[in-house]
Amino acid sequence: MRHIISIKDFEKRDIEALLDRAEAIDAGTYDRHALDDRILGVLFFEPSTRTRMSFEAAMARLGGTSIDMGGVEASSVVKGETLADTIRVVSGYADAIVLRHPKEGAARLAAEFSSVPVLNAGDGAGQHPSQTLIDLYTIRQAMPLDGIDVGLLGDLRYGRTAHSLAYALTEFNVTLHTLAPQSLEMPPNVMEGLKDRGVEVVRHEDIEEFTASLDVMYVTRIQRERFPDTASYYAVASSYRVTPELLERAREQMIVLHPLPRVDEIDPGVDALPHARYFEQARNGIPIRMALLLGVMG
Amino acid sequence: MRHIISIKDFEKRDIEALLDRAEAIDAGTYDRHALDDRILGVLFFEPSTRTRMSFEAAMARLGGTSIDMGGVEASSVVKGETLADTIRVVSGYADAIVLRHPKEGAARLAAEFSSVPVLNAGDGAGQHPSQTLIDLYTIRQAMPLDGIDVGLLGDLRYGRTAHSLAYALTEFNVTLHTLAPQSLEMPPNVMEGLKDRGVEVVRHEDIEEFTASLDVMYVTRIQRERFPDTASYYAVASSYRVTPELLERAREQMIVLHPLPRVDEIDPGVDALPHARYFEQARNGIPIRMALLLGVMG
Amino acid sequence: MRHIISIKDFEKRDIEALLDRAEAIDAGTYDRHALDDRILGVLFFEPSTRTRMSFEAAMARLGGTSIDMGGVEASSVVKGETLADTIRVVSGYADAIVLRHPKEGAARLAAEFSSVPVLNAGDGAGQHPSQTLIDLYTIRQAMPLDGIDVGLLGDLRYGRTAHSLAYALTEFNVTLHTLAPQSLEMPPNVMEGLKDRGVEVVRHEDIEEFTASLDVMYVTRIQRERFPDTASYYAVASSYRVTPELLERAREQMIVLHPLPRVDEIDPGVDALPHARYFEQARNGIPIRMALLLGVMG
Repeated sequence: MRHIISIKDFEKRDIEALLDRAEAIDAGTYDRHALDDRILGVLFFEPSTRTRMSFEAAMARLGGTSIDMGGVEASSVVKGETLADTIRVVSGYADAIVLRHPKEGAARLAAEFSSVPVLNAGDGAGQHPSQTLIDLYTIRQAMPLDGIDVGLLGDLRYGRTAHSLAYALTEFNVTLHTLAPQSLEMPPNVMEGLKDRGVEVVRHEDIEEFTASLDVMYVTRIQRERFPDTASYYAVASSYRVTPELLERAREQMIVLHPLPRVDEIDPGVDALPHARYFEQARNGIPIRMALLLGVMG
Repeated sequence: MRHIISIKDFEKRDIEALLDRAEAIDAGTYDRHALDDRILGVLFFEPSTRTRMSFEAAMARLGGTSIDMGGVEASSVVKGETLADTIRVVSGYADAIVLRHPKEGAARLAAEFSSVPVLNAGDGAGQHPSQTLIDLYTIRQAMPLDGIDVGLLGDLRYGRTAHSLAYALTEFNVTLHTLAPQSLEMPPNVMEGLKDRGVEVVRHEDIEEFTASLDVMYVTRIQRERFPDTASYYAVASSYRVTPELLERAREQMIVLHPLPRVDEIDPGVDALPHARYFEQARNGIPIRMALLLGVMG
Repeated sequence: MRHIISIKDFEKRDIEALLDRAEAIDAGTYDRHALDDRILGVLFFEPSTRTRMSFEAAMARLGGTSIDMGGVEASSVVKGETLADTIRVVSGYADAIVLRHPKEGAARLAAEFSSVPVLNAGDGAGQHPSQTLIDLYTIRQAMPLDGIDVGLLGDLRYGRTAHSLAYALTEFNVTLHTLAPQSLEMPPNVMEGLKDRGVEVVRHEDIEEFTASLDVMYVTRIQRERFPDTASYYAVASSYRVTPELLERAREQMIVLHPLPRVDEIDPGVDALPHARYFEQARNGIPIRMALLLGVMG
């Protein structure tokens, strides 16, 4: 049985096969009844509008049905049930489970106790593999994945999507660039993991020079709650803001991605520029998740 | 692309065509697979059991699937996302969006940013067009829409369903009657809008005489929170209560409508009388919303 | 019209017919499109992950769609609507209603006002008939329902599943055994009801001797909130805990059931023993609820 737990379980050819499948789906080449008799159990122990809705939409596009646990406050968790028991029960109802959980490692644990495939939709500081595949897919729509400069901007300490993407890119021939507030820099263990896998990481301190160096700029949200007070948040956040003026420094073909939701990191004036690809990136959640669901249940 | 934002966008012939379509649906003349491959994105930023459930049921009756954002507390809104961004993302997942929002004008804004049709399911003090179409449909099931006396009772200040219905009735040859507590009378701008459109509005002060003048009585809920204390609420509410005794004054064919939920405005003893049509009115949410969904996605 | 309100409405042959139908469904003998055009209205006024999800999964396995009221906090109930009105409205949207409600008798009341079949999914201290049918089905998978010793362990005062099962077993030739903390013993009226129906009830005080007497051990959750403080809860709970050591006393074929969620009542070490049937029992929710849904809508 195939679980989708971590992008680290994917080799380069697995990634490419999945992106190819998503591309075919995008072109309309799929069976709308492929999952007609299948049920996806949706267990989100943490809210996430877009991840949950796009998994449910992907399931519906293939003819399948989703059954949702609903909010944690309405679940058996409040009665003290363990994750292992919840998974054992729900895997008796569904043909696959998509899980989001606040604790790192929850998805791996769930896979142990599940009698059906588990798809990790984010577990704490851990992995969120479908997001990374969406990111890669959106880059590949614009340019080849090899030989490019990819910049990670914003919260590189807690931002699990940035870690996963960086890791996945080590399968390709890329140069990574980083720019982050001092307190939110990439953790040493992630940096070392990247170096071990032979990837060059260039640390920047100047946002203009950073911007000018890239083919892909991956922006992440800097969360207010990481700072002692609102004033220090604004002081930092305003220095890491992507604006139309900043993008005048960018290479013509450079694309801007963001896993969304965004708050102040990207000026709305950027939305109309050809660089902006974050809404397309969000939309790519559908073909990627359709490909993943077909992979585990098709 | 056709959005459904305000009843004001509907001319008389649009209304009649839609009611005819709902009538045909009610008679069983529709394709149960018309929306088989379609997805409705359900974004309710404010709770509403019956509107949400009837849109989802209407979608299901036509073979379609609904994907629900869930409660606001579990959405990206809590992370600070703008409505424009939420709409842009969800319109990449769904084939139409039904939106309820606490702020007037939200639906019009959503339509600007959506790549798929938006159906307004109520935006603050603004519009709730599907409810108005249900009201008109329920009246037309009982009598012609021309040449009738329609009375609006209760909270005519904040009650957006009463405003929308009054406005829509200006397309027909009706006389409007109103009876409301002094603090909850129809706002001057709504009154003037009605007069501009050539409709006579008769203000009443006596509920018995009001009742005796009508072919249709449209009752709305008087909300406790509009009053400084519970005592003053009860004092007012009890004077605007519809009871079997009151209805002895009514014309034999007079019908009583209410957008529901009702609390104390209508005595349960009325439910069994032939005047009572509010549960039928609720049921009419299905054919009307099926007609609307077919109109935008069919 | 057939409602499913109480296990007491089922005679022995009704129960057996339903278990036979579930068995056929389990063997794959059912029409996956039987409820293609049907809608199940899901009204849970109290949270319950597994009951709700398994009803929705059962509906999906038969091709039907569920529309969910969502949490009570988002419903018309907060606006003061009565259960009777909610039921009248939702029965205009759906082809059957599944109801969970905190008040005993709510399901019977709902059935009075509903124009479609009502399935009781638990009403306060009242009934939860589908759970009881699941329990009986799981027992029957392991042994004949006649001539067996069934032990009820844990909270026998508030545990409605234990009461319903005990009652249903009076239709069969069984001996009932009970073991409960003093403050949580089977209420006198339930005990008398069982005696009136000719069933022998053996009260135990020693858990080892209790265990050794059984073919079926039905464990229920002892809730912390029944005790004045955590210390007294733990003191009691630890004496009623089912462990691998305890089960060494058990008959070889004895099976352990639990309606779940479990907290501390059953040691995880029991899960791997052949006695443990509680996860299978949870899984049996699907065929039983499919049989019930077919019974009322098929």
